[in-house]
Amino acid sequence: MKSRQFLLASRPVGTPTADNWDYVETDLPPLSVGQIKVKVLYISLDPAMRGWMNEGRSYIPPVAIGEVMRAGGVGEVLESSDPNFAVGDFVSGGFGVCDFAVIDTKGVHKVDPKLAPLERYLGVLGMPGMTAYFGLLNTGQPKAGETVVVSGAAGAVGTVVGQIAKLKGCHVVGIAGGTEKCQYLIEQLGFDGAIDYKNQDVKKGLKATCPNGVDVYFDNVGGDILDDVLSKINMKARIVVCGAISQYNNTMPVKGPSNYLSLLVNRARMEGIVVFDNIKDYPKAAAEMAGWIAQGKLIAKEHVVEGLATFPDTLLMLFRGENFGKLVIKVDHTS
Amino acid sequence: MKSRQFLLASRPVGTPTADNWDYVETDLPPLSVGQIKVKVLYISLDPAMRGWMNEGRSYIPPVAIGEVMRAGGVGEVLESSDPNFAVGDFVSGGFGVCDFAVIDTKGVHKVDPKLAPLERYLGVLGMPGMTAYFGLLNTGQPKAGETVVVSGAAGAVGTVVGQIAKLKGCHVVGIAGGTEKCQYLIEQLGFDGAIDYKNQDVKKGLKATCPNGVDVYFDNVGGDILDDVLSKINMKARIVVCGAISQYNNTMPVKGPSNYLSLLVNRARMEGIVVFDNIKDYPKAAAEMAGWIAQGKLIAKEHVVEGLATFPDTLLMLFRGENFGKLVIKVDHTS
Repeated sequence: MKSRQFLLASRPVGTPTADNWDYVETDLPPLSVGQIKVKVLYISLDPAMRGWMNEGRSYIPPVAIGEVMRAGGVGEVLESSDPNFAVGDFVSGGFGVCDFAVIDTKGVHKVDPKLAPLERYLGVLGMPGMTAYFGLLNTGQPKAGETVVVSGAAGAVGTVVGQIAKLKGCHVVGIAGGTEKCQYLIEQLGFDGAIDYKNQDVKKGLKATCPNGVDVYFDNVGGDILDDVLSKINMKARIVVCGAISQYNNTMPVKGPSNYLSLLVNRARMEGIVVFDNIKDYPKAAAEMAGWIAQGKLIAKEHVVEGLATFPDTLLMLFRGENFGKLVIKVDHTS
Repeated sequence: MKSRQFLLASRPVGTPTADNWDYVETDLPPLSVGQIKVKVLYISLDPAMRGWMNEGRSYIPPVAIGEVMRAGGVGEVLESSDPNFAVGDFVSGGFGVCDFAVIDTKGVHKVDPKLAPLERYLGVLGMPGMTAYFGLLNTGQPKAGETVVVSGAAGAVGTVVGQIAKLKGCHVVGIAGGTEKCQYLIEQLGFDGAIDYKNQDVKKGLKATCPNGVDVYFDNVGGDILDDVLSKINMKARIVVCGAISQYNNTMPVKGPSNYLSLLVNRARMEGIVVFDNIKDYPKAAAEMAGWIAQGKLIAKEHVVEGLATFPDTLLMLFRGENFGKLVIKVDHTS
């Protein structure tokens, strides 16, 4: 059986281009014991993928040149040599950017299409949802009445951060690009305020929407917006460093936060998170979030782009701020 | 009675110059109830003074133009209208940069010249010692066997941070300027390693002296050294932001730490401290440190410069990295 795959052809300098990818068709190997063959239905596109394309030390090894690009996905089991997985099961795992995959079942788990649309297991009920849940609650530690600001607010993580903060009784402000996204945050997700960084001065926006200052900042973007928020933090504020998408395609060094001494003045804290550290608590978090979704208290939003071949360009939507909710590719299958 | 005083004449742009000061002789006012007249014997010079000269929001208000420059000091009570203080008592308080002061007794406390030389109450037994003690123990939270790195290591705070970390069983490395200071850290204070940032590559120095990476970094300097250490931190490392003396005279914006995303990769934390927050626990800390000094486990080092008139220039020694231990002025008195 053939698989269409995107291989990492070279390491990007700055923004990834078509040249960084080889789009190939390969014969899949036969199954070894403990493996399954999966028809990949949805592929998760995440800002972290940009980091995996770089060489060098990070929280997981880089993707090697010539290797299938790493990606989470959901799919259907076509063949199994693991008694825990049956043909027809729906599963989530790191299948890579491809339409069919043969993979060890370690790290693969079943998902239930009756409980939620399959793509949701890559969003609220997947890694971005877990990132939001644990990053906000364990590291941000928001208390009722406090002000929580989140950047990348209309993205996969940001939408969930803001809604959980509302559930915890906080005043919630999102920073996102464009009028449509900002309206969505307020009108659909119940945010108290939204700042359109593409058309507004963020500092002024913070002043207007956060009259009591900022107690928790969940940062997905870094760059100037991080500095703007640092200038408005309260005593003992907590800044959750989840990502810095504004910096991932830099060819220059990362812009460090010039206002970091605001941490000193305000006895505040800036702390990094990586979602995998909470893996043993995923089931509890997923159950709680599924409950919120069922009660209509947590709205999931996915942004679905059709066609595996769109991958190189669809990935860039993340860095242009074009996705609205969790970005996934719906895989087409010729066979 | 006359007092010689340094008044803030103008706010410096970059490094303070002689023009920023007015050196005047003024008649002291008569005592109101609850005041004392003090003969100032030692004046504390601290990096924080540079911040107090700036306009704008910080953890305490700036010194006003025309006001006596704020400074801690120790002195002798010459007159008292507060029954808690007697003529001849030795006291520590915020007397300012002057030779005689009339001051409210709020915030003034007695010190005992039999227990320690008077200048020590501005160092190990004063604000710098408290900063080191609480910043390291409460925020750095070093555990035996961990590696603790401190910058400004030969300064008032750094010397104490490193020695307390040794007492807690840590591997301790200091970053300081010059061979003499580095030798002192190792030979006299028992540091395990020292990096001479004026003559060595700090990154290479860290690699050589911290084979197990960095668990706690106590930062007094900011700038490139903060970035160098960020590149070597371990999982769950704690960075104590105590100061950033390399940036205080900047006319350009502060250099933010480009490597701050190392916090994310390593799930590490960067947290600011201000010593005043621990004021109610000072007596306990002072008692413990006095015990260590008495047992020879904690060595105090002061750098004494003679003469009030030297103040503008002596202050700059801090920013040139010329002080070796706690910098104080020993005040001369003509009357």
